[in-house]
Amino acid sequence: MRAVDLIRRKRDSRELAPEEIQQFIAAYTKGDVPDYQMSAWLMAVVLRGMSRPEIAALTEAMLHSGCVLDFSDLLGRKVDKHSTGGVGDKTSLIIAPIVAAGGVKVPMISGRGLGHSGGTLDKLESIPGFSVNLTLAEFRRVLETCGCALIGQTAEIAPADKKIYALRDVTGTVESPALICASIMSKKLAEGIDALVLDVKVGSGAFMKNLDDAAHLAELLVETGTRMGKKVVALLTDMNQPLGRKAGNAMEVAESVEVLAGAGPADLRELCLELAAWMFFLGERVKTLDQGKKLAADLIASGQAREKFREIVGLQGGDVGVIDDPRRLARARHTRAVVSSGRGFVSSIACEQLGVAGVVLGGGREKKEDAIDPAVGLEFHKRIGDAVERGEPLCTLHYNSETRLAEAQHLVETAFRIDAEKPKEIPPLIYRIIGA
Amino acid sequence: MRAVDLIRRKRDSRELAPEEIQQFIAAYTKGDVPDYQMSAWLMAVVLRGMSRPEIAALTEAMLHSGCVLDFSDLLGRKVDKHSTGGVGDKTSLIIAPIVAAGGVKVPMISGRGLGHSGGTLDKLESIPGFSVNLTLAEFRRVLETCGCALIGQTAEIAPADKKIYALRDVTGTVESPALICASIMSKKLAEGIDALVLDVKVGSGAFMKNLDDAAHLAELLVETGTRMGKKVVALLTDMNQPLGRKAGNAMEVAESVEVLAGAGPADLRELCLELAAWMFFLGERVKTLDQGKKLAADLIASGQAREKFREIVGLQGGDVGVIDDPRRLARARHTRAVVSSGRGFVSSIACEQLGVAGVVLGGGREKKEDAIDPAVGLEFHKRIGDAVERGEPLCTLHYNSETRLAEAQHLVETAFRIDAEKPKEIPPLIYRIIGA
Repeated sequence: MRAVDLIRRKRDSRELAPEEIQQFIAAYTKGDVPDYQMSAWLMAVVLRGMSRPEIAALTEAMLHSGCVLDFSDLLGRKVDKHSTGGVGDKTSLIIAPIVAAGGVKVPMISGRGLGHSGGTLDKLESIPGFSVNLTLAEFRRVLETCGCALIGQTAEIAPADKKIYALRDVTGTVESPALICASIMSKKLAEGIDALVLDVKVGSGAFMKNLDDAAHLAELLVETGTRMGKKVVALLTDMNQPLGRKAGNAMEVAESVEVLAGAGPADLRELCLELAAWMFFLGERVKTLDQGKKLAADLIASGQAREKFREIVGLQGGDVGVIDDPRRLARARHTRAVVSSGRGFVSSIACEQLGVAGVVLGGGREKKEDAIDPAVGLEFHKRIGDAVERGEPLCTLHYNSETRLAEAQHLVETAFRIDAEKPKEIPPLIYRIIGA
Repeated sequence: MRAVDLIRRKRDSRELAPEEIQQFIAAYTKGDVPDYQMSAWLMAVVLRGMSRPEIAALTEAMLHSGCVLDFSDLLGRKVDKHSTGGVGDKTSLIIAPIVAAGGVKVPMISGRGLGHSGGTLDKLESIPGFSVNLTLAEFRRVLETCGCALIGQTAEIAPADKKIYALRDVTGTVESPALICASIMSKKLAEGIDALVLDVKVGSGAFMKNLDDAAHLAELLVETGTRMGKKVVALLTDMNQPLGRKAGNAMEVAESVEVLAGAGPADLRELCLELAAWMFFLGERVKTLDQGKKLAADLIASGQAREKFREIVGLQGGDVGVIDDPRRLARARHTRAVVSSGRGFVSSIACEQLGVAGVVLGGGREKKEDAIDPAVGLEFHKRIGDAVERGEPLCTLHYNSETRLAEAQHLVETAFRIDAEKPKEIPPLIYRIIGA
């Protein structure tokens, strides 16, 4: 295998054999293929695409670049959920304890914030003491003890993905359904799960801006997972506005605890019940989705889901006090309201801009090595279709430093579009289910 | 300027501003932009193309990454010739002395063999003692003394091109008219010339296989050079069969000396007269091309061109004895004839394969660091349209090692196609002139 030949063939839209892809990825992981050859190949993939067999081969090559966990000795089904990311998307923190409380095991390997989109690991780390850096042995122990564990990608899990992911971020090669699919599935298939529920976000705050692109990605993900012998379903869900009312690491933990306590915003609660229902269904805990949804609601109402969250937080070293008293979480020192300059209705939201505003306030990273401020974030007061008066608050910024406040404020102000007419269509919560 | 933004924009087929290209190339030359970002950008350029203003900006940025020579204090016009490369293309060795003997100065910065195609520097170095590694001061001194100097790209000349060229070779990003144009023109415009004659090769032994691609490249080259205030013309010439009868470094020096002595193969002599005529014409030494061609022929007939070559060789440290006695050049120890297995006419030649056969014998490089054997090469006995008997030699391999002889022999055997019918069309020497 000569790397340059594989680059040239992909450039010329020719298909690579599975063993060629396997050798190429293995050589890159070992350091025998340099970054500059991989990045040229990645760009050729972005612009030329990959066939289904190529995507399957790439996913397998990345999966087998590291350890594949085996939890087959643990009783019960193992099911995970993965979201492609958006603004205010904190469902993992809510459904992992619900589903574990319902008796289905959830071995969840999550990511950090990426661009405008938040990350489960960053949110969890805003709980004082919470460790996401467990060894694989500790991961297994927590999973055995309480039915759920939440960690970051370790060096043993899909190291090829780790290396390629970092390279894609700086070489303009993120936006490829084939590469996104291989990246997600190589990590998720390493988790030792039986089934996977995918939450593919679509809209102005998602990586996929339109339904066709999102559906294409969802189909690739479902097909790739199914080909590997897993039960997989993908929900195409809306990201034209933030999910819930809060975005920002500690603020999202607080809102998650609200939902686990039976309260919280309706849209967030509803999506969590849907996703949990699918996990129960694929995990063979229930016979119908309705049963799954009822089970999830019951586990919230009875307090069992909240207790499960307390158990997980405790086992992973976090301060369980935050569950009863969210004021123990980091809080920003200042707030600033962004008010409407007109009167009418919120007709659309440039949701990605809201995510970027959160990054600008310090809640996310612009470079991989940036530190983040867990306390800062945004609180949303209006959703698409809501009536708004001139001078009424649209969003409150929670911040610690004035340095880039004006920039964040401008991003938020220009993100909300106010029209005189009430919009004819309000985005639904869920567009479509693929693979059911 | 964020490199990743420029990569993404080019990936999305959007145009970059001249100052963005300038900053990007400057940052890469300094090492502030890593190879892996440049290679992703190069692949995006290969697949998305560049506009004329982008190509001009890239050429200027690469040109101004290093020194631009200024010979305006030297009397007379400075004119160079550049070929896009082929098999047996040794015209530089012949026309540089002809044109210098005619009173037009030729400051020529040449390249090494690349892939199947030979390089002027490698050919010159087969003359014992000949040095192509002159400093810029020595380059000027030789040019002043005899009107011509032949060197390789120094560290001062277009360092951005040097770095990008090496990267393109290993990342599958060679085949882009925009990148080829910027690479050629950034070096040639650094030479301090007034005019440039381009020999754009087309056919089975050229990088451009068809006339449309070659014409497109020629137009880009002419336009870019003209935009920079140079007189530029491009000749589209045939490379469906080797030029002359010999390919191989020392063998090509011997054949060049034959032409300078008034003999040599007709096709090679004819093309040299044409190219020299254009150089005289653009160098304002003659008023018409016919006058230029006659002047070139006269300079050969009078022996002045040959004497000029002797002068150049001497000034650059080479053994001038080779001009009177080519047996002083390195000669391969063995020969092997490749004979025709059929009877009829040579209908076509896979000319690139012949070039590769020369590389396989050791006359070119497969990796940049490979050493080359100046003595080996190929001697061609048949051209397209020639009648051939079964068992008659088509080509003689000159070799020193048996190691890869069979491979070279197979390449040559399968390169010649023999048909019963005489081919209706014989490729012309020159297809078209662009920019005149």
